[in-house]
Amino acid sequence: MKIVIIGAVAGGASAAARARRLDEDAEIILIERGPEPSFANCGLPYYVGGEIQARDKLLVAPTSLLRQRHRLDVRTRHEVVAIDRDNASVTIKDLQTGEVSTETYDKLIISTGASPFRPPLRGIDHPDVLELRDLDDADQMHARVATDGSSSAVIVGAGFIGIEVAENLARRGIEVTVVELAEQILPPWDAEMVRPLEQHLRDQGVRLKLQNSAESFRDSKTEEGRLVVTLQTGEEIHSSFAVVCIGVRPESGLAAEAGIDCGPRGGIVTNEHMQTSDPNIYAVGDVAQVKDFVTGDPTQIPLAGPANRQGRIAADHIFGRDSTYRGTQGTAVVGVFGKTAAMTGLSEKMLQRSGRSYQKIYIHPNDHAGYYPGATQMTLKLLFDPENGRIWGAQAVGTHGVDKRIDVIAMAIQAGLTVDDLEEVELCYAPQYGSAKDPINMAGFVAAGALRGDHAVVHWSDLEQSTADMSILLDVRTEQEFARGHLPDAINIPLEVLRSQISELPRDRKLVCYCQVGQRGYMATRILQQRGFDAVNLSGGYRLVSQSG
Amino acid sequence: MKIVIIGAVAGGASAAARARRLDEDAEIILIERGPEPSFANCGLPYYVGGEIQARDKLLVAPTSLLRQRHRLDVRTRHEVVAIDRDNASVTIKDLQTGEVSTETYDKLIISTGASPFRPPLRGIDHPDVLELRDLDDADQMHARVATDGSSSAVIVGAGFIGIEVAENLARRGIEVTVVELAEQILPPWDAEMVRPLEQHLRDQGVRLKLQNSAESFRDSKTEEGRLVVTLQTGEEIHSSFAVVCIGVRPESGLAAEAGIDCGPRGGIVTNEHMQTSDPNIYAVGDVAQVKDFVTGDPTQIPLAGPANRQGRIAADHIFGRDSTYRGTQGTAVVGVFGKTAAMTGLSEKMLQRSGRSYQKIYIHPNDHAGYYPGATQMTLKLLFDPENGRIWGAQAVGTHGVDKRIDVIAMAIQAGLTVDDLEEVELCYAPQYGSAKDPINMAGFVAAGALRGDHAVVHWSDLEQSTADMSILLDVRTEQEFARGHLPDAINIPLEVLRSQISELPRDRKLVCYCQVGQRGYMATRILQQRGFDAVNLSGGYRLVSQSG
Ligand SMILES: Cc1cc2nc3c(=O)[nH]c(=O)nc-3n(C[C@H](O)[C@H](O)[C@H](O)COP(=O)(O)OP(=O)(O)OC[C@H]3O[C@@H](n4cnc5c(N)ncnc54)[C@H](O)[C@@H]3O)c2cc1C
Ligand SMILES: Cc1cc2nc3c(=O)[nH]c(=O)nc-3n(C[C@H](O)[C@H](O)[C@H](O)COP(=O)(O)OP(=O)(O)OC[C@H]3O[C@@H](n4cnc5c(N)ncnc54)[C@H](O)[C@@H]3O)c2cc1C
Ligand SMILES: CC(C)(COP(=O)(O)OP(=O)(O)OC[C@H]1O[C@@H](n2cnc3c(N)ncnc32)[C@H](O)[C@@H]1OP(=O)(O)O)[C@@H](O)C(=O)NCCC(=O)NCCS
Ligand SMILES: CC(C)(COP(=O)(O)OP(=O)(O)OC[C@H]1O[C@@H](n2cnc3c(N)ncnc32)[C@H](O)[C@@H]1OP(=O)(O)O)[C@@H](O)C(=O)NCCC(=O)NCCS
Repeated sequence: MKIVIIGAVAGGASAAARARRLDEDAEIILIERGPEPSFANCGLPYYVGGEIQARDKLLVAPTSLLRQRHRLDVRTRHEVVAIDRDNASVTIKDLQTGEVSTETYDKLIISTGASPFRPPLRGIDHPDVLELRDLDDADQMHARVATDGSSSAVIVGAGFIGIEVAENLARRGIEVTVVELAEQILPPWDAEMVRPLEQHLRDQGVRLKLQNSAESFRDSKTEEGRLVVTLQTGEEIHSSFAVVCIGVRPESGLAAEAGIDCGPRGGIVTNEHMQTSDPNIYAVGDVAQVKDFVTGDPTQIPLAGPANRQGRIAADHIFGRDSTYRGTQGTAVVGVFGKTAAMTGLSEKMLQRSGRSYQKIYIHPNDHAGYYPGATQMTLKLLFDPENGRIWGAQAVGTHGVDKRIDVIAMAIQAGLTVDDLEEVELCYAPQYGSAKDPINMAGFVAAGALRGDHAVVHWSDLEQSTADMSILLDVRTEQEFARGHLPDAINIPLEVLRSQISELPRDRKLVCYCQVGQRGYMATRILQQRGFDAVNLSGGYRLVSQSG
Repeated sequence: MKIVIIGAVAGGASAAARARRLDEDAEIILIERGPEPSFANCGLPYYVGGEIQARDKLLVAPTSLLRQRHRLDVRTRHEVVAIDRDNASVTIKDLQTGEVSTETYDKLIISTGASPFRPPLRGIDHPDVLELRDLDDADQMHARVATDGSSSAVIVGAGFIGIEVAENLARRGIEVTVVELAEQILPPWDAEMVRPLEQHLRDQGVRLKLQNSAESFRDSKTEEGRLVVTLQTGEEIHSSFAVVCIGVRPESGLAAEAGIDCGPRGGIVTNEHMQTSDPNIYAVGDVAQVKDFVTGDPTQIPLAGPANRQGRIAADHIFGRDSTYRGTQGTAVVGVFGKTAAMTGLSEKMLQRSGRSYQKIYIHPNDHAGYYPGATQMTLKLLFDPENGRIWGAQAVGTHGVDKRIDVIAMAIQAGLTVDDLEEVELCYAPQYGSAKDPINMAGFVAAGALRGDHAVVHWSDLEQSTADMSILLDVRTEQEFARGHLPDAINIPLEVLRSQISELPRDRKLVCYCQVGQRGYMATRILQQRGFDAVNLSGGYRLVSQSG
């Protein structure tokens, strides 16, 4: 068996290593355009920021290791320039000598990844307009911030790479401006969830220009920076350099030229074994179009975990194993100056776009028992199918324990579980780690309660309409909390005295109860409902409304 | 509906609060022997240790809150002294006045918890022999360590409460000796898993006396402490006080006297709705015998999460809801001087005791990507059914990310998943949080590989026999690693040169490959197997053997 693999990083190197374990005799050739195989793409921003100090930490499996340990024929600084399916061969260019050769294959694995999208803007090729994908890029950016005395940067695009780059440049003392077309950072997340992070970034001195975009780049004539970035609004920002992080495009050109099917967004179409339309050719990682685990629809979500696992599956299938890829769930996490945002499954946006019906709840639990020092509050949003309670997705933002809760829900989604299952799961509890009713249980309680109709839930975004219904906003927090800020026109009856003042409330108007996080509002709703009032609870409470901005 | 609840803490208060939410009109009486309802039992050790400074932090829901917010009739310092099932009433003693009264019920919930077991040892009633269950106990111990100048303590029992008490006393500068009958601390865990924690405790100055027990307690005549604890070995330890933490016994006396069925270990027998043999009487929390989630066998596992959820389920069922308790999984976590041990499901011990067949694997993954600063190694053990790969249980010990991995596996067990499912789950990955192949995936890979027969796995405990088979121990680590320590009689051929030296290996002997953690051993095994050698991999590698002591 002779296997040729194009691209020797997450998907490609994983496929190669697995192939070797499955077959000592296989001939396995790994062809990589860049200077090094198997490097830590995901570590690049932290190398730039100085968090990772030694560059060679980024070399997860250097060429020597791949050769000695896995007996792989690794060829770096070599590029595959054509695939000849009829002859089952590839054309390879040695980037150092320019020499061109061919190599036949029994099986070909394409793991060429995705390249940063560079829109055709004026000046985009200016030498101070950078991107961050590979070691060369990282070296360049590192040199600028560590030694070349850059003082400011414009990040174009606030996806997770843009945000990581922003954080890391700011950590170097660089004045950072992030420009994002959407009206929020981290577009895959729902807007209200990332509002606290936007504030957090601003608090750290990062300037955000949302609903805006870079229109052109040109030389600066002033002292303030070498580059001028002109925004859509006309504003000009002088800076040392810019970094374009507005998403990636599958590097599927080779495949398309060879007549292999690609999807509408450029990803190479694959089946559950990662085979392309040519059964001798596999595609894995960012270059592949796969199935969304939750919806079954075609998707492209560039993530390292899926790339690694897809590489392993392709190798398995080549050696006759029935391994299948179940689809990408979209579990993602990003750290921002000590805060964490994580998500798994579908967002509300995606649900809306796909026309699926959904219900949602928000909670703001502590990461661990409130009575133990250091507890921090997170916001957790759970989306589920109103028909059967099946979990569509979840997002969480906070300081500690965020990735843990999303991982647990990711597992639940993987198992096709419902919100009722979250009520019952038994998780680690000691006061430093969680709560007797873990945030996961709590999300289950609240969601299952809403689903069962125990309490009608209303969302802030729907409230305008409710107000038109002449509903009353009933703030059931304490007087002190009310005094510190409340929703417009709300009246205040603390939960503790609600029963005794219940007769003062009108029976012909809808009562929208709210508290700080939703819990007392829920209890008020239960009391009022049982007394014959038309009461609903504002999910997520005042905190969500105020943090959603 | 009139509900009487005996015991107003985890199970009882949760049942009461839920009952109120379900029915505004119900009469709900909560009877509590102690001074306060609804306190944080699990916080007591940390209050003693000073980590939780303010005592009132422990009062999760004070009487006033339960009265005002939940309109509960809370009676503290009242004890139920008898249950009269014929008249559906309880006899209550006011512990302050001595007055006795009766209260009828439509439904009765028993949530009396479990009390520390005090074996009938000589001197066990000595005033310096303490226990830690409730606020009074905590106050007493707190006074001794915070103000009374105690300098040393003997902890009898190294279960999780004993270990938490040991840590917290040591944190106060007290010289701590822990005496444990078993040959390990934390008896629910498997011995080899807790060895590193034992070492860690010793490193922190805690003295461990394993396979030993306290035989008697008496006054000291010397200066070294007021109490002498005599051990089974004859050793005498002088100390300021002792704490007995050798497990708990369900407080089911009341129920038993009323003719309610109790199990062999004293727990009140319950059905899936938490009803006892008398359908109008429910039992929840530590006093109840429930089903083990994994095996379906009767069990008693005193944990706060289950107590809380069982209380909620009992209330649900009283109000006609079909909520059912699925059984206790035994998910538990304990922190020890910055390290964490967590488990879920069955341990190897339990599997052996119950005669179930199982397979196991060990891995030592980093909590997050090794190339990002601060990564720490954990040891993760996964137990599964060799027939179908279903997960029986897992244990992990390490510094960071331990509770997260066990929670994810707890969710997987809840969903009835297999090790193959762990291979495929998609978890949060950015370098600060995990790895592209998360420890969970890695555990899945290794377990599924073992299950599929990709590599024969051998365990250290089985090796003695292998050695009798004249097998060869083949250390495939580097020469440097080998020089720093290796298994007796092992030969060293680093993985990197194994292929070139393969001809030197005998074909008629079994080769037991090992490396530091198991991964290179696995690769060596794959190479040798494919070349026709009889090779097996030592699971967990040298690290596991050396840390298992
Ligand atoms: C800065 C940054 C941060 C990231 N952070 C995270 C994170 O925190 N979490 C996460 O899950 N994911 C993260 N990712 C995404 C993750 O790195 C990718 O999803 C993953 O690497 C995809 O693997 P792949 O094998 O498809 O592509 P890659 O890892 O990109 O490898 C493709 C390789 O193919 C080579 N190649 C392309 N064409 C050819 C050719 N014709 N001939 C030879 N070689 C070729 C390229 O040089 C490249 O090295 C990050 C990515 C970047 C750039
Ligand atoms: C020090 C300590 C640390 C712990 N740490 C953890 C941990 O980290 N994680 C975890 O999951 N679990 C922990 N636990 C266990 C957890 O607290 C229990 O599992 C849980 O509290 C059980 O709830 P329960 O309602 O059954 O009993 P309890 O919470 O014990 O409540 C029972 C109450 O009933 C009262 N009572 C008993 N008999 C009568 C009567 N006849 N009349 C009136 N009142 C009566 C008692 O006074 C008691 O207050 C810990 C326990 C202790 C003691
Ligand atoms: C480094 C790289 C080549 C390694 O590939 P790999 O060998 O498949 O992966 P790992 O090193 O994680 O090892 C996994 C294998 O070791 C086995 N293993 C791991 N720990 C083990 C243990 N303790 N005992 C036995 N086997 C073990 C696993 O079962 C698995 O083998 P399998 O696939 O045959 O089941 C590849 O992951 C890579 O290039 N990574 C860097 C690039 C990247 O991922 N970038 C994006 C993220 S920054
Ligand atoms: C304090 C105590 C009385 C609270 O009981 P409780 O009200 O049932 O529990 P919580 O305060 O966690 O609230 C959970 C309820 O609030 C609801 N809720 C929580 N957050 C919410 C939100 N943001 N929006 C809407 N509802 C919310 C939940 O759905 C749940 O209601 P449900 O059971 O009707 O579905 C009880 O947990 C207790 O006594 N604890 C201390 C003792 C103890 O547990 N010790 C052992 C551990 S140290």
